Amino acid sequence: MDNRPIGVFDSGMGGLTAVRQMIRLLPGEDIVYFGDTGRVPYGGRSAETIVRYARQDVAFLRSFDLKAIVIACGTVSTTAMDVLKGENDLPILGVVQPAAQAAASATKTGNIGVIGTKATIRSGAYETAISALLSKAQLTAKACPLLVPLVEDGRVRRGDAVTERVVEEYLSSVKAAGVDTLVLGCTHYPLLMDVISDYMGNSVTLIDTGEEAARAAAALLAKRNQLNDPDRAGVRLYYASDSAEDFAATANLFLGKDISDRVERVAIENY
Amino acid sequence: MDNRPIGVFDSGMGGLTAVRQMIRLLPGEDIVYFGDTGRVPYGGRSAETIVRYARQDVAFLRSFDLKAIVIACGTVSTTAMDVLKGENDLPILGVVQPAAQAAASATKTGNIGVIGTKATIRSGAYETAISALLSKAQLTAKACPLLVPLVEDGRVRRGDAVTERVVEEYLSSVKAAGVDTLVLGCTHYPLLMDVISDYMGNSVTLIDTGEEAARAAAALLAKRNQLNDPDRAGVRLYYASDSAEDFAATANLFLGKDISDRVERVAIENY
Repeated sequence: MDNRPIGVFDSGMGGLTAVRQMIRLLPGEDIVYFGDTGRVPYGGRSAETIVRYARQDVAFLRSFDLKAIVIACGTVSTTAMDVLKGENDLPILGVVQPAAQAAASATKTGNIGVIGTKATIRSGAYETAISALLSKAQLTAKACPLLVPLVEDGRVRRGDAVTERVVEEYLSSVKAAGVDTLVLGCTHYPLLMDVISDYMGNSVTLIDTGEEAARAAAALLAKRNQLNDPDRAGVRLYYASDSAEDFAATANLFLGKDISDRVERVAIENY
Repeated sequence: MDNRPIGVFDSGMGGLTAVRQMIRLLPGEDIVYFGDTGRVPYGGRSAETIVRYARQDVAFLRSFDLKAIVIACGTVSTTAMDVLKGENDLPILGVVQPAAQAAASATKTGNIGVIGTKATIRSGAYETAISALLSKAQLTAKACPLLVPLVEDGRVRRGDAVTERVVEEYLSSVKAAGVDTLVLGCTHYPLLMDVISDYMGNSVTLIDTGEEAARAAAALLAKRNQLNDPDRAGVRLYYASDSAEDFAATANLFLGKDISDRVERVAIENY
């Protein structure tokens, strides 16, 4: 047993979709979450800047004594994972490997789509990981730069004409390729599940990267005998680099519950 | 005569629409531009964060010996202007006052619309400035959070179905109010002039805040006898907080010319 908390971070609010799953799967675990809301979004920035920001995010989380870190951000997982692993002596999980495994298991035809931010698609990381597991995989990748701004603006519901139009435009090539599995390669995208599912149709399996990362974290901790007592009530602390009030106000959308009294602001550029 | 450069800054690329006008009106002036591309966009962040970032932007620019600073950013002009003026002993011009004067001059009916980022509309700064000049002004303001992501993604042209749909949605209340003048309260928006003008119709005057700020800078320097020799060729230096290559690649869209060999990266968090 290991009663230290798990650190989780994202460029902003998206990683809370992973936290939500972690709370469900690992109710006894303490979690320290950092969302870099003062510098979100990461997905359009250069690899060099993404690595620099990710290093600061990890340095802040490591001011706590953690047993593991979950990178609940598609952009950081695809662009800075190797650097972060090389520099840190604790287990670091990203969203790529768990999502690749889920996609390789789910597909029947081997025809798989991947959507993500510009940086994520530029990295080719999901394609590399899926091809390593399934050499015959046929992959169609598409960068979707407007989806994060739409989600951060709360425009996630069925019937939002702009969101539906944007999703249709981005996914038309993926749909035309006839994929049977689609990796939602950014932790913001599960909030668009309804709109994406309506467009792609019921026959296409959507892979929720946050959910897969939460499962992988649970499996890793179990294997290392590092789970906390599952019967205790885990404590979650939330930190953000912009206003704590704004974070709390939007977190509900991602997390499905109120966290207003547990958010603090961090000066992330000092880490 | 004063041969020192003018400092200009924005959250990202938008301020280059003001630089373009400054080059036209003040060809002999040297300009130092900073775009905070590592932290763009500002418009959805808290006032506290916007002020903190703007202070660093000014501190960087003041590492040069400047004769004036132009805040070529609607969000900073509406949210951090008073703080910056109080802390600096050189002339600082924002976009609000020049745009308010242009709108008050242009309107025949006094019925004026204002669009901007969330922070800009929350501040009420344009409304305050216009009402002070034209007490009978009837104002309709609308926050347009998706316009900056659309412009930064290069989706500015007529016929872009998403951009046209977003513009229609944001401007429907402004159009319904029957305004005869519309303040484009963010320096990104002039790139959407065609789409906005198509929707609003020819009878509505659009106020380009970057252009008005450039005119105000020219008038101020003339009045203070601080213009440089107009027959010399002004030198412009460009700095960005994310990749210099990415900045140069997109700058053409805003500036109408190539600047690839004159962009340098700045570690803005050190200022």
